[in-house]
Amino acid sequence: MIDDEKTQKPIPPGQDQEYEESEVNIEGRRVTVRTRKVPPLPDWTKTEIVGQPVPRVDGVDKVTGRAKYTSDVQLPHMLYAIAVRSELPHARIKNISIEKALAHPGVHAVLLPKDVERYIMGNPFAGTLPLLTLEPKYTGEEIAVVAAETELQAEDAARLIQVDYEPLPFVLDPEVSMTDKSPVKFFPEGNFTGGGFGQRKIGQPSVHTRGDLDVGFKEADHIFEETFRTEPQQHACMEVHGTTASWDGDHLTVWESTQGVFGVQEEISRVFTLPMNDVRVIGTHMGGGFGSKGGAGKQTMLAVLMARRTGRPVKMVLSRHEDFMGVYRPASIQHYKVGVKNDGRLTAIEMKSVNAVGAYMSGSMWGNSSPMTQQMYACANVRTEDRAVFTNTPPPGAMRGPSNVQNAWGLEQLMDLIAHKLNMDPIELRMRNDVKVDQVTHQPYHSKGLAECFKLGAEKFHWDEKRLRRNDPASTKKYGVGMASQIWGGGGGPPATAIVKINQDGSINLLTGAADIGTGTRTVMSQICAEELGVAVDRIHVTNADTETTPYTLPSYGSITLASSGPAVRSAANDAKRQLLDLAAGSLGVKPEELSSKDGFIFVTAQPDKRMKFEAAAGAMPERTLVGRGYRGPNPKGQSLNAFGAQFCEVEIDIHSGEVKVLKFVAAHDSGRVINPHTFASQVKGGITMGTGYALSERRLIDKNTGVPVTASLLEYRPPTSLDAPVDIEVYSVDVPYTANNIGAKGVGEPPLIATAPAIANAVYHATGVRVKSNPITPEKIIDGLKSLGGRT
Amino acid sequence: MIDDEKTQKPIPPGQDQEYEESEVNIEGRRVTVRTRKVPPLPDWTKTEIVGQPVPRVDGVDKVTGRAKYTSDVQLPHMLYAIAVRSELPHARIKNISIEKALAHPGVHAVLLPKDVERYIMGNPFAGTLPLLTLEPKYTGEEIAVVAAETELQAEDAARLIQVDYEPLPFVLDPEVSMTDKSPVKFFPEGNFTGGGFGQRKIGQPSVHTRGDLDVGFKEADHIFEETFRTEPQQHACMEVHGTTASWDGDHLTVWESTQGVFGVQEEISRVFTLPMNDVRVIGTHMGGGFGSKGGAGKQTMLAVLMARRTGRPVKMVLSRHEDFMGVYRPASIQHYKVGVKNDGRLTAIEMKSVNAVGAYMSGSMWGNSSPMTQQMYACANVRTEDRAVFTNTPPPGAMRGPSNVQNAWGLEQLMDLIAHKLNMDPIELRMRNDVKVDQVTHQPYHSKGLAECFKLGAEKFHWDEKRLRRNDPASTKKYGVGMASQIWGGGGGPPATAIVKINQDGSINLLTGAADIGTGTRTVMSQICAEELGVAVDRIHVTNADTETTPYTLPSYGSITLASSGPAVRSAANDAKRQLLDLAAGSLGVKPEELSSKDGFIFVTAQPDKRMKFEAAAGAMPERTLVGRGYRGPNPKGQSLNAFGAQFCEVEIDIHSGEVKVLKFVAAHDSGRVINPHTFASQVKGGITMGTGYALSERRLIDKNTGVPVTASLLEYRPPTSLDAPVDIEVYSVDVPYTANNIGAKGVGEPPLIATAPAIANAVYHATGVRVKSNPITPEKIIDGLKSLGGRT
Repeated sequence: MIDDEKTQKPIPPGQDQEYEESEVNIEGRRVTVRTRKVPPLPDWTKTEIVGQPVPRVDGVDKVTGRAKYTSDVQLPHMLYAIAVRSELPHARIKNISIEKALAHPGVHAVLLPKDVERYIMGNPFAGTLPLLTLEPKYTGEEIAVVAAETELQAEDAARLIQVDYEPLPFVLDPEVSMTDKSPVKFFPEGNFTGGGFGQRKIGQPSVHTRGDLDVGFKEADHIFEETFRTEPQQHACMEVHGTTASWDGDHLTVWESTQGVFGVQEEISRVFTLPMNDVRVIGTHMGGGFGSKGGAGKQTMLAVLMARRTGRPVKMVLSRHEDFMGVYRPASIQHYKVGVKNDGRLTAIEMKSVNAVGAYMSGSMWGNSSPMTQQMYACANVRTEDRAVFTNTPPPGAMRGPSNVQNAWGLEQLMDLIAHKLNMDPIELRMRNDVKVDQVTHQPYHSKGLAECFKLGAEKFHWDEKRLRRNDPASTKKYGVGMASQIWGGGGGPPATAIVKINQDGSINLLTGAADIGTGTRTVMSQICAEELGVAVDRIHVTNADTETTPYTLPSYGSITLASSGPAVRSAANDAKRQLLDLAAGSLGVKPEELSSKDGFIFVTAQPDKRMKFEAAAGAMPERTLVGRGYRGPNPKGQSLNAFGAQFCEVEIDIHSGEVKVLKFVAAHDSGRVINPHTFASQVKGGITMGTGYALSERRLIDKNTGVPVTASLLEYRPPTSLDAPVDIEVYSVDVPYTANNIGAKGVGEPPLIATAPAIANAVYHATGVRVKSNPITPEKIIDGLKSLGGRT
Repeated sequence: MIDDEKTQKPIPPGQDQEYEESEVNIEGRRVTVRTRKVPPLPDWTKTEIVGQPVPRVDGVDKVTGRAKYTSDVQLPHMLYAIAVRSELPHARIKNISIEKALAHPGVHAVLLPKDVERYIMGNPFAGTLPLLTLEPKYTGEEIAVVAAETELQAEDAARLIQVDYEPLPFVLDPEVSMTDKSPVKFFPEGNFTGGGFGQRKIGQPSVHTRGDLDVGFKEADHIFEETFRTEPQQHACMEVHGTTASWDGDHLTVWESTQGVFGVQEEISRVFTLPMNDVRVIGTHMGGGFGSKGGAGKQTMLAVLMARRTGRPVKMVLSRHEDFMGVYRPASIQHYKVGVKNDGRLTAIEMKSVNAVGAYMSGSMWGNSSPMTQQMYACANVRTEDRAVFTNTPPPGAMRGPSNVQNAWGLEQLMDLIAHKLNMDPIELRMRNDVKVDQVTHQPYHSKGLAECFKLGAEKFHWDEKRLRRNDPASTKKYGVGMASQIWGGGGGPPATAIVKINQDGSINLLTGAADIGTGTRTVMSQICAEELGVAVDRIHVTNADTETTPYTLPSYGSITLASSGPAVRSAANDAKRQLLDLAAGSLGVKPEELSSKDGFIFVTAQPDKRMKFEAAAGAMPERTLVGRGYRGPNPKGQSLNAFGAQFCEVEIDIHSGEVKVLKFVAAHDSGRVINPHTFASQVKGGITMGTGYALSERRLIDKNTGVPVTASLLEYRPPTSLDAPVDIEVYSVDVPYTANNIGAKGVGEPPLIATAPAIANAVYHATGVRVKSNPITPEKIIDGLKSLGGRT
């Protein structure tokens, strides 16, 4: 979890030559951190390895099944733990009978809510989230845990635990929960709070305001009022949440499927009052996180606790069904009122959002949908209000492009709607409201390639031609195109540290704390390291995500991994290289600064044939292993660092069945320097695929009468299969210089998902005239829309 | 294994400001290495943690059985490998039938000599040692390996392999092997070579010579000619040799019970032609090495090979019986001719030694027994000749105090014999021949506390009083005292690197490549780190001996660990501290150089109440984890670094049974600064216990007719049990300043064993008049000696 307290620690006073302030933007949260000044490195002008489509360094391991994931961890004498979960959305538990479970073969222990306290001694987990509870507030909430020698024994024993519930009233609809009619009172001050990262108070929305709405609406030639809705979205990672915990005396080792080992270490250390160096968290290969594995999960703490209780290693891996009863992207209801001049300029935006954030405070910070509204388009008069409303559902969490993905669904459809109304090209409308200064921070954007994305994307998509194409009135197939654009806080930042070891044979060990959550982190970090050292990428072996042996880095969330850890890796490689050049200078009879390293050779820059092999220099290293260390330096002051993009989409709709088929996507992104076109394109394609599911098929449904999730499986939830996902996706990067860090990259993890769903919705409108304001765009909604339009199609 | 080629790599030319030459003395081998210059740190004047008897940081883990050793490593789907070994000391193998073994349940593979070649492609292991052979040259040599799902299945299958031998003649006695009568010719040029580390040639002894023997003997008032013999000594580690190997694609992980993970990594990398970063060697807790685990063993390579062949992790842990058929300290025969003046001054020493080094070249470098003869006592005219003679026995290896332990048995008895003859106090004789300059290198000793050891030891032992005490003629119990002294190459040296990470909560991770072979390395390194940082020792967690995640250091042999890695640890801690002080300086409003760190506080040195808690400074670290890096700097030039010591012993002998009981030991050692009196004393007591076994009970016997070892078990080999070991051992360190490295320590691993056995032999002589010149001093030898003395007792 993001830990506000730590990052926002007050900066000690005093004149300090070694440090300066730097701003980091994580998941839309801007934090100022003190940062060690780092010797600057020259921008790369020409690269040999960076920018190349290097195959994934762990690709063979993954496709052959050799790569180890958390569920592959096997320890001698390991037990399996399974939770007993509430069957009701709100209840008081009168009794739990565990005798039968304890008597079941292979069972070692059952943990109940009362057992938790003596281990964690009042230290809260994730704010106020109980690890086990006697008053479950959502279906699936953890009540007890059982551990046994085999998974089957644990499952059977969990079923033998008898829970006597006293059912309590519950509320699922946030619009009901917000009112006096709510049958549940979550807090005395009310059933909602503000959403997002700022100061928040129960009973009050979080508000951003600038200018004067009245003035703005008066200036307007047109006023649009629209409401958009988004459904919850499940992360549905290929790999479910899982932990294996093993105590060795007071030293704890945890294998975790996580985006950030250091956050998990911090949280375990805090909850169990352990020194951080007694908590070793090891990340494994990851089958996706998408924000759901940013910190420790409940299963992390429960596995640790059960391992303590039983004196045995404990593995707790959720089932797919359990995973679906956990974290997700919150639902939103977005009310917009927008004033526009005839020429398309926005004069006022008022937005009120309602976001359903489950039964606990912990999910509320993700309960906002307005960051793009505040920033994306030039507008002097803006007011946004976000309400994070409590309901009897699990707390949501960060999910790839949190807030912006919901926000874009509304805002980017609204822009399309306005463009159609004003009879303007949607690109032209957006360009007319382009802005070079971040309207929230009042800082200029360090670089903004949005116009370039529009230009390149439109050209590659043949936007002008396709947009004007008419459908054949006689055909039941209708074709349409749509586009949407996107902003995301980018550029990462400190703290991040890396270590580069040069071995005697010239092979390299790169040690970085960064998790590779499936995005290709090992590969791009290897490229950066190889580029800086001037050796082939296969000379690098990456060890990552181990709190004991690799140095600190922020978690792999917020699209910050590359831009945070990458510069640290380059610095570490440079530090190692400088030491090696010192040595080679002696051999070549020149000064170190006269030397370069490239293609496996160290050579006199001005006289390239005066050279020695990299491994020959390494072979002569008196240290046997050179250790290079690199810290991530500060971001430039007074500038906003953001990634931008635009996506273009073509759909085919069968007006008889209402079925939507995505024919083509063109994505143009400004993510700074692309380290690896392969992994860059994979990220974008993955985002578009996920966005297609959000737009067309995914539904997290809860039975309104019982509060029980009814789509808690991959089959019923319906993320896109390989047959549903768009096949024809073209990915482009616009080449806008970015010099805010020493590798020139902004990161591209979340941006590709943000514009996808509204681009599809806009294409659906273009094809059919049906504006679907709530996702997913089901055939029923299309058919209903067509019906209400009358004979238009 | 020590790798001459790497360390002695020619130093590249060129004027190099960053490096200088430095000499390191490892197991009596002096090598010159280039060394990075390191910023000097002030000598510690007053210490808080260093010098304290801190309990072992891993003590609880060890006594509770939680500490993991190589044989505890369990991997999913792991196979167990067992070798088929030669039953004859020399044979040609005509056929190996493996069908029955392959058909045995659970068996996965059998490896034969022909299979080895395609994996190692001609790369030799340990010089010329075959991994598997069709012409075994000693009983127990490896012929084949079988791997099965369980240990029992592997054992059974190994027994089902039928080997058809053609017996060949063999030779066990080195004095026979050296002559034309030898039935075996090991090399065309002869059956011996020089012993030791210098240039050696088959058929020629290694020779050290200075002055003129003829002149020396002419000057002498007395000439002594004596022959001493030593038996082979087994390491008999509590933990036997073992390896677990696991391939993950082309990336290999090896868990090894080893004194040095980096040497094992180098050797595997060389033999299997793998990049070093694809070979991860992890050291575990160690139940002793004593030199026998300095590098990769055959079982290391065979486990790696079998894991490659089967595609499964493979564990190969030797049985105790197999361990006894392997490496050991070589036997020696030492002929001395010494000229002495009436006043005790030595005028000439001629020494010829014969050392039995098994059937392969690999053991020959340990085949010398003369380093103390060359160095210990002032003498202008010296000639030593060492012959390493081949026999049909396994190759010996380094064993705690190699060469010096054998040499001391002869030399220190000889000095005693001379003192008795001249009617001098043996201490006085030794002091008369004291020398301040290393007679081999012609360099002065950086520090030499030998005289202080004599003085302190004699005082604590009440030497003068006890030496003059007379035995009761009527009693069957005779009492006597003896002493001996010792020199050892000490002081360690580069290369060694360490990393110190400060976590946000002020807890520390120390990363060092050094193995803790049972000597307390984790503890003393923690103390050094804690002292330098100014925090309590329990704030330090050590991660060590992992080639992938910890930095390079030389193996834990040659008593170099503390003096090599310790200074690197202090440098790394200092580097981390300086970074933290930079930060704290900002908070306290002073300059970093005005700050100190002690007792968990960072404070203004001149104003100690102006302070902040160490963890408060750590909590404000922008880097979240600070990474300190330290390299071991060079040793001072032109000086010899050595450790010295003297041991005093009292024995009780039953002249009816011939039984020798060691009543008391006093040991005084000059090892530089003592980091931890507990672990220091444990080292000394362990050495004395091992030396007592060497003196009195241990025997590695081989049946002369069949060549089969007959004492290949702990029961039969007879290392001292807790009832045999001396109980009353007093340990002292003399306080002689040593400033050759930044922690002031020389190391104490091997020295305590060197003087023990001759001190006992000298006490036996003092008690009975019987001079036992061959170890062990059995009751039979005492009784025989008493008989030949006639009625003296």
